[in-house]
Amino acid sequence: MKKFFSVKDVSSVADVVQEALALKAAPYDNQDLGQHKTLGLVFLNPSLRTRLSTQKAAMNLGMNVMVMNMDKDGWALETQDGVVMNGTTVEHIREAAAVMGEYCDILGLRSFPKLKDREEDYSEDLFNKFIKYCGVPVVSLESATRHPLQSLTDMITITEYKKTEKPKVVLAWAPHVKALPQAVPNSFAEWMCKAQEEGLVDFTIAQPMGYELSEEFTAGATISNNLEESLKNADFVYVKNWSSYQEYGEVYGVDEDWMMDNKKLNLTNDAKVMHCLPVRRDLELSSEILDGPNSLVIKEASNRVWAAQVVLKRMLEDLA
Amino acid sequence: MKKFFSVKDVSSVADVVQEALALKAAPYDNQDLGQHKTLGLVFLNPSLRTRLSTQKAAMNLGMNVMVMNMDKDGWALETQDGVVMNGTTVEHIREAAAVMGEYCDILGLRSFPKLKDREEDYSEDLFNKFIKYCGVPVVSLESATRHPLQSLTDMITITEYKKTEKPKVVLAWAPHVKALPQAVPNSFAEWMCKAQEEGLVDFTIAQPMGYELSEEFTAGATISNNLEESLKNADFVYVKNWSSYQEYGEVYGVDEDWMMDNKKLNLTNDAKVMHCLPVRRDLELSSEILDGPNSLVIKEASNRVWAAQVVLKRMLEDLA
Amino acid sequence: MKKFFSVKDVSSVADVVQEALALKAAPYDNQDLGQHKTLGLVFLNPSLRTRLSTQKAAMNLGMNVMVMNMDKDGWALETQDGVVMNGTTVEHIREAAAVMGEYCDILGLRSFPKLKDREEDYSEDLFNKFIKYCGVPVVSLESATRHPLQSLTDMITITEYKKTEKPKVVLAWAPHVKALPQAVPNSFAEWMCKAQEEGLVDFTIAQPMGYELSEEFTAGATISNNLEESLKNADFVYVKNWSSYQEYGEVYGVDEDWMMDNKKLNLTNDAKVMHCLPVRRDLELSSEILDGPNSLVIKEASNRVWAAQVVLKRMLEDLA
Repeated sequence: MKKFFSVKDVSSVADVVQEALALKAAPYDNQDLGQHKTLGLVFLNPSLRTRLSTQKAAMNLGMNVMVMNMDKDGWALETQDGVVMNGTTVEHIREAAAVMGEYCDILGLRSFPKLKDREEDYSEDLFNKFIKYCGVPVVSLESATRHPLQSLTDMITITEYKKTEKPKVVLAWAPHVKALPQAVPNSFAEWMCKAQEEGLVDFTIAQPMGYELSEEFTAGATISNNLEESLKNADFVYVKNWSSYQEYGEVYGVDEDWMMDNKKLNLTNDAKVMHCLPVRRDLELSSEILDGPNSLVIKEASNRVWAAQVVLKRMLEDLA
Repeated sequence: MKKFFSVKDVSSVADVVQEALALKAAPYDNQDLGQHKTLGLVFLNPSLRTRLSTQKAAMNLGMNVMVMNMDKDGWALETQDGVVMNGTTVEHIREAAAVMGEYCDILGLRSFPKLKDREEDYSEDLFNKFIKYCGVPVVSLESATRHPLQSLTDMITITEYKKTEKPKVVLAWAPHVKALPQAVPNSFAEWMCKAQEEGLVDFTIAQPMGYELSEEFTAGATISNNLEESLKNADFVYVKNWSSYQEYGEVYGVDEDWMMDNKKLNLTNDAKVMHCLPVRRDLELSSEILDGPNSLVIKEASNRVWAAQVVLKRMLEDLA
Repeated sequence: MKKFFSVKDVSSVADVVQEALALKAAPYDNQDLGQHKTLGLVFLNPSLRTRLSTQKAAMNLGMNVMVMNMDKDGWALETQDGVVMNGTTVEHIREAAAVMGEYCDILGLRSFPKLKDREEDYSEDLFNKFIKYCGVPVVSLESATRHPLQSLTDMITITEYKKTEKPKVVLAWAPHVKALPQAVPNSFAEWMCKAQEEGLVDFTIAQPMGYELSEEFTAGATISNNLEESLKNADFVYVKNWSSYQEYGEVYGVDEDWMMDNKKLNLTNDAKVMHCLPVRRDLELSSEILDGPNSLVIKEASNRVWAAQVVLKRMLEDLA
């Protein structure tokens, strides 16, 4: 595996999930694989779960880890070519990426969208240039349009907790006070659509009018503006807010009827409730659910380690 | 040991000090204990000594260490229940603590008081909730009301340098320009009172009127407003500033008569002088003392490693 | 080796370069040397290459690494003696350095000049006090007047890529928009002058009038204000901006005739082009050179690891 950026980077969702679960059962079996190998984690934006879980995964594999927080002022990267760098950017991504690639065997990069210019964000220009210039395998720690380690984690978690062969999974939009990226829902959707193709899940997306995701990620999904209807027979409800893709980055006001609570949970098949965290309690998701028996959010966060570990393991095997 | 928050978490001060000194004599004897174990250090406030010494202690024990600096803007934790999270807090401590507990075998937490509302600070609400929700052993790296790793360090240092069976130890208030927490003196007082009960020291507190600590921490101590009188026959003088507990967080002006200097040192039994650092030179404590033969401040800071190491060792033994 | 601050800390440039190249050929041969040894890296200013490469070098030697970023507000160090510390500095360098020396076997320090007061910057007061009070070997990670790990790296790179016994090396001033320190060119100059004494290079400095470096660093070099003339027969061109030493910290406007480009490269002996990075593209150095076959900048950055590793190895050998 040379990069882990989207679901296209795995040939079989089922296989990568089984390999992750095998690592969960025996976390330290591959310590030789990472010996003398260095993982560099580059954060252009803050991170809690992604940083800790990826660091843990790398240590489980015997790797060294170096963390670079470049989210501060003073290290603005230039990404455009042909620019005379007489302004505020201090280093071009061509040099910055190449240099980090010299010190690290594998790199991870987190870079959020600006939510101003859809074309710019969806071009994934920064990410693609980082991959191009660093010269080593790159793991996405969340990019402008996707969060693949989260989505792989989610599929691992669904596999662990499913009670039927082919559970019904609903991605349910939820209210928030800020304009959030589409990266998590895009990514979840493309992984679930692939899992559906493999016969692993039955996938539905429910969102208010105006919050339709790009079709690039949702082909094959059942899509609805009716949450109650969508929740019927659901085995898993994946709660998440996102801003508009059509009117890019727009938020149409918080509609509390879309908050997931016990009343809506009663419409489901005793569904397990998931969220990538951090979650706004009693705005996106009710406390009664988060503190109750149907919530998987902590176990889901815990599984981030195994998603990261299987990806790093595959990359290390390709390096060897 | 499931938590290390106050002196109540050790059954015998004498025993834990002896165990720490044994570790100092053979720092790497327990490297197997920490194999594949991860310590997470969470800082809501800055740290120099605590961070480095605890990290060193963990490495001595063969542990992995992950550091989370959450003192920056952008990761404000909600601690209250029943709040609709539509404001500036981005994550509830219920989730944040639980998730960190999934990635780490032991957690350390630093969280300073706000010095606005005594009841709130002294409830140690944040700390208690962190312990409750993370589900793993927690070491205090200084909380609103206590700094137990510092106090254990101080007792180790007193034990190493004492010339008599039961030395006289004086906690002496000193001037400062800022309103500082009572955590260090509270904690020192409760450890010395327990040590006094065990027959290890004779303990006196000297502070100006208005700076009395809470009786919760000082029961058994000799308390005085007369510094010169208190210093007579002292074997150790522990210099520290703190703000008022009664008029919570107040500072009554810098009284330089309370600065520790050679003239006052002459009143003692050639006492060793201690301070938790950082120290304001020639405001709290004179340069002549800090640079002279009676100062233990560097050796004391050095002993922070062994305090952290004995606590982590006991926690690891309980995990095993 | 007790400190690594200037070229005076190595007896032979040729020898240290050969030892570094031997480490490059066998990076993990000295892992026992660093066992149970801790490197502390203290940054008063930001760092990308220096931090990652030094961390990597230490890990290659089997050392533990602890990083302290003290570039933030809230940990201002006092360096003057005899000051009543009732202002904004929170800790004196006497204590801060001594404490870090207790936790670490070797320390690295980065501290940039303020470019206000030449005498203050060139006294290297902070650096010298840090060395004096910490009590352990210290590696400069760039100080007010020198960047020796960079210069050693540069000599390693020149040795690797030279095509003649004694190549002609030109340090060429280049334009910038900010006032930059003289540390990199000072240091490069003193290393090249020493290398010239050892018969390893032929060294020329070209800069506009007013940008003359201190003679302390340039004794023995050919110095010119004519870039085109200097570039003739050059085998290596080292491009770098710096502010004025004479009118300390001044910048006389960006003179684009001094930007290194292919037209100027044609004057050389097909010279390899070097830069310490970060580089301002098309301001200091043209993109056509950076993206072309004559650029060594990435390989040069990569060699930072071996410069750091040979220095740490020599310090560890002295500790043993």
